[in-house]
Amino acid sequence: MTEQTGAQALWAALSGEGVDTCFANPGTTELDLVRALEGQDSIRCVIGLQENVCTGAADGYGRMTGRPAATLLHLGPGFANGIANLHNARRARTPIVNLIGDHTSWHLPFDAPLTSDIESLARPVSGWVHRIDSTADAPRAAAESVRQSLADGGQGATLIFPADYQAEPLPGTPASAAEPAAAAAPEAASLDLAACAQRLRAARRIVLLLGGGGEAGGLGARAQRAASRLCAALGAAAYAETFPARAERGQGLPAFDRLPYFPEPARAVLDPADLVVLAGALPPVTYFGYAGHPSLLVAPERLLSLGAPGHPVAEALEQLADALDAPAFEAPVHPLPAAPTGPLTPAAIGAVLTRALPEGAIVSVEGGTCGYPFYAASAAAPLHTALTNTGGAIGQGLPVAVGAAIACPGRQVVGLLSDGSTQYTIQALWTMAHEQLDVVVLIAANHQYAILRNELRRGGAPLGKRAEALTALDRPRIDWVGLAQSYGVPATRAATAEVLAAQLQDAFGRRGPALIEMAL
Amino acid sequence: MTEQTGAQALWAALSGEGVDTCFANPGTTELDLVRALEGQDSIRCVIGLQENVCTGAADGYGRMTGRPAATLLHLGPGFANGIANLHNARRARTPIVNLIGDHTSWHLPFDAPLTSDIESLARPVSGWVHRIDSTADAPRAAAESVRQSLADGGQGATLIFPADYQAEPLPGTPASAAEPAAAAAPEAASLDLAACAQRLRAARRIVLLLGGGGEAGGLGARAQRAASRLCAALGAAAYAETFPARAERGQGLPAFDRLPYFPEPARAVLDPADLVVLAGALPPVTYFGYAGHPSLLVAPERLLSLGAPGHPVAEALEQLADALDAPAFEAPVHPLPAAPTGPLTPAAIGAVLTRALPEGAIVSVEGGTCGYPFYAASAAAPLHTALTNTGGAIGQGLPVAVGAAIACPGRQVVGLLSDGSTQYTIQALWTMAHEQLDVVVLIAANHQYAILRNELRRGGAPLGKRAEALTALDRPRIDWVGLAQSYGVPATRAATAEVLAAQLQDAFGRRGPALIEMAL
Repeated sequence: MTEQTGAQALWAALSGEGVDTCFANPGTTELDLVRALEGQDSIRCVIGLQENVCTGAADGYGRMTGRPAATLLHLGPGFANGIANLHNARRARTPIVNLIGDHTSWHLPFDAPLTSDIESLARPVSGWVHRIDSTADAPRAAAESVRQSLADGGQGATLIFPADYQAEPLPGTPASAAEPAAAAAPEAASLDLAACAQRLRAARRIVLLLGGGGEAGGLGARAQRAASRLCAALGAAAYAETFPARAERGQGLPAFDRLPYFPEPARAVLDPADLVVLAGALPPVTYFGYAGHPSLLVAPERLLSLGAPGHPVAEALEQLADALDAPAFEAPVHPLPAAPTGPLTPAAIGAVLTRALPEGAIVSVEGGTCGYPFYAASAAAPLHTALTNTGGAIGQGLPVAVGAAIACPGRQVVGLLSDGSTQYTIQALWTMAHEQLDVVVLIAANHQYAILRNELRRGGAPLGKRAEALTALDRPRIDWVGLAQSYGVPATRAATAEVLAAQLQDAFGRRGPALIEMAL
Repeated sequence: MTEQTGAQALWAALSGEGVDTCFANPGTTELDLVRALEGQDSIRCVIGLQENVCTGAADGYGRMTGRPAATLLHLGPGFANGIANLHNARRARTPIVNLIGDHTSWHLPFDAPLTSDIESLARPVSGWVHRIDSTADAPRAAAESVRQSLADGGQGATLIFPADYQAEPLPGTPASAAEPAAAAAPEAASLDLAACAQRLRAARRIVLLLGGGGEAGGLGARAQRAASRLCAALGAAAYAETFPARAERGQGLPAFDRLPYFPEPARAVLDPADLVVLAGALPPVTYFGYAGHPSLLVAPERLLSLGAPGHPVAEALEQLADALDAPAFEAPVHPLPAAPTGPLTPAAIGAVLTRALPEGAIVSVEGGTCGYPFYAASAAAPLHTALTNTGGAIGQGLPVAVGAAIACPGRQVVGLLSDGSTQYTIQALWTMAHEQLDVVVLIAANHQYAILRNELRRGGAPLGKRAEALTALDRPRIDWVGLAQSYGVPATRAATAEVLAAQLQDAFGRRGPALIEMAL
């Protein structure tokens, strides 16, 4: 075996643990990691022109595969650019391994311009942070980072790798292959099913709250079918959490709506329930603090948890359904909405997309304008997967679509996005063109921060002049068609439902990315 | 006096301390700060579509005025998006006041989706971090934040402001107007000038290293003239630090070059000197750790500091020149470079811009491709101000240009930028169009990360296939003209020096922004 550098050993160890994809925006302190890729064909690198593209793509990849992608980021400032989407990934319980180069170890004390406190930046979005402290440490740390990324239902694991330890040869015999990761599929919590069944029987009015995650999560197909049986047996209602990391959706599955965002309608759902059953969902809290509403929407004594977010809960739901003699699941048939006509509205967009969506599509949803109407309508679409913004850091939609497309090359990806939030990581369009990803991006172009205007108007007060100015994006209106084309993404504009339907059909019929600006 | 909310009191206090500009990208937890602007006409708000635009603009504003602008950012993730340019601002010693909304105080314990450890994110780029802990605390904290931003030669001061304390009325009588900020213009260090003169006389070979800052900094006109006198008296050489926050430049001023970036040419300048005089510059360290080169390029015993970065050093230099009986300053006349012809090269671009630059221009320089040749040539341009990337976090060039244009409405601003780095904060183009700023953006479009290729080739090794792929930006080539136009910025493309000269003349003759893609 020839001599390995620390960087080569790190890639080899990551590859040995099953990492096959790295979303990268390296700089000078990561160049030995770049050099070491030359012999490492099992790891695919995908460039992002800004780091939040890389971290958001890793989130999308991890949500779809259940395995961590790596990110490769440049020192503290490069990492900082990617924090917002790592925040979303943390809320989604997505496994991610972040690789951050740092200055050569002996150069750090001199506080050169690019020096910063990387650990302080990394901790808020990492369940585990480790600074590689020697070349020999690199392969061990790499293997451990993969294990850590899979811990606790999925989390960020961040490795800081000084440049000299990347470049130096591994001492002595090559480090023994790290023991393989304890394929840490999270285990189902051990539940007292009889006691759970007893509580369910005793309750008068039950709400099931299902939380996202992978195939075995609360919004996987199995869990939803079991939840549907429980609803039938108990006269219960079931909801998806408001912002699921991943929800299976479409014909053959129940049409569970999402728990509403604002506290009044959320309370209308939850307050009447004497038992709220959590399956992969956290106890529901309001998104922001609203005067007159409690933060925690359901008191602890009314809660029953079948499993934490990121953990498999399908089996527990099935066993409970059996224990309660629930009827067998009957696949519902949801009537397809009529083909809308005329000017585009959020409801029309939801209906058009529902009718056009190919089977097996993955829909990355960001932005309130079109997200809610589509999600409501999409029960009637063919089976597909929805990914939503879990942490509220906007600029997630395009990058997550990139990651999902890399993770699932055979599936059509759709980004159903708002114009305000999409600007934050607009550079992702280039990666879509560069990799020729099958992503169709739909931009709801209302040229305003509509969510802020909705919040400002909640009190009933009219919008002040300065509040209006600070939430307006219409001077000038961004030309989304020209913008997409400048990044190499073919683009069109639609102002009516008929035109949108035709353009969608066309875009789904071709390979590679496309963008449609939807004039609202 | 009518009842004030905490948010109104905060704006009033900031305004009272001289803050007149806020670069804003607010969200729901900042809406009471938005509402409170309605009565506060002394503070201008400028929207950025991504937070790193806001923080970079505040950096440019602070460099040009010596006063802090505020930023208004949304919780941890919004702040995180602006960290990279706050890192650059920290290295530039720019005063900035960051306002971050946070959840309503009683909502924080419930770990709602947007909750994160804001303090941990803020500390690495803030000299001072304060969490407002009551409505009454808001005006005091605001006044203190301005003072803190001006401390230590300039730094980031970060205020975290929970939403409920923004909204609630100030208790009892309105807080007494905070005592005005101790207009904390940093004082010149008290130097033993006689001892300094003695060391200068005794030295055989002297290098002066001048560091940026405001008018009275080491690269202000006064300091440069005095340094020129010292060079004449002592046979010394003078250099600007490699990445000055702000340097006055042009006809009538000396043609001091910047200390080279790579260690070999930097050492060729510094190793022969037995005395290196620092005037507003830090002791020089290599940018990265390079094997075979010390990090600290000049041993402490060969260093003499006349004042730290961000502190005025002009007077000390003048007094030293007088003490050494240095001759009077003679304004040099630098021959204008000949008008270049033919295909664009970095040298040709430097010459064209030098010839075209209007008097009093401000040039935001980012990217190695054109930055060095222009800086070298620009001594022959009319008097102007150069702003460079102080911290190495790329994506600074456009936002700093925005901030400089807001700070200095009468002056022509130029962004001399590289295509790779400009992508990181491309959204700044929209703010330029929205505010109709007089900024001419020149993009050196070589469609690659040239700096990384230069670093990769330093060892003499050829570029590997994967290294080439990870540093290539040419599939597809970004259409910069279309990109700028989609944001409302008129744009053209130039492939020859003659065309660039004509387009520059045209752009400088019109108001509002323009972009020129320079094909390399």
